Amino acid sequence: MIMETAYMDIVPGKELEFEAAIEEAKGIVSQAKGFQVLHLHRGVERPSTYLVAIGWDTVEDHMEGFRNSDLFVQWRGLLGPFFAAPPAVEHWNLFE
Amino acid sequence: MIMETAYMDIVPGKELEFEAAIEEAKGIVSQAKGFQVLHLHRGVERPSTYLVAIGWDTVEDHMEGFRNSDLFVQWRGLLGPFFAAPPAVEHWNLFE
Repeated sequence: MIMETAYMDIVPGKELEFEAAIEEAKGIVSQAKGFQVLHLHRGVERPSTYLVAIGWDTVEDHMEGFRNSDLFVQWRGLLGPFFAAPPAVEHWNLFE
Repeated sequence: MIMETAYMDIVPGKELEFEAAIEEAKGIVSQAKGFQVLHLHRGVERPSTYLVAIGWDTVEDHMEGFRNSDLFVQWRGLLGPFFAAPPAVEHWNLFE
C-alpha cells in the first residue's frame, strides 16, 4: 500500500470545526478509485497541526485520479477554508 | 493511542541494511511497556528517508519509559550507525 501523509496546519481556534469537516470529507475521498483507508492524527507538540494519512493502491490513484476529479474539488472546498498554510504532502511505501 | 512519528534519514547506500536492522530493532522496542505497533514506510519522493510510526499507550511510555531504558540503548545501538542525521520525532493523538 502507498501511504500519503498530509500535514495540515489549521487556523488556530478552528480545530474542532476542522475535525467535523474532515469527517464529512472522508465520505468524499473514500469514493475515489484506489482509496483504502484514512487515519486522522492531531499533534501533541503542535496541536493546530493534523497528520492525515491516506492509504492508496498507487501514487497515481492519488495524484492523477483523485487530484483531477470532482471529488477533489469537493474535498478541497470543505477543508481549504481551515488551512493556515498549504498542506505538505508526501508518499510512502508501507512495508508492514 | 499515541502515534510517534520518527523520520530517519539513512546514509545513502545503506537502506537495505537499515531495513534488516530495524526488523531486529522491532523485536527490542516491542518489549517496552506501552508499545502497541510499529509501521515502517520508505519515502517515494525521498527514498533514503524512512517514516517509522510507533503506537504507544502514552507519550510517557515512549519519552520516559522507553527512552530511559536499556532497551533504548540497544535500539539506538542497532539503528544509530545508519542515521545521516538525528531523527525528527513527534507525537500524535490518533483519532481513528
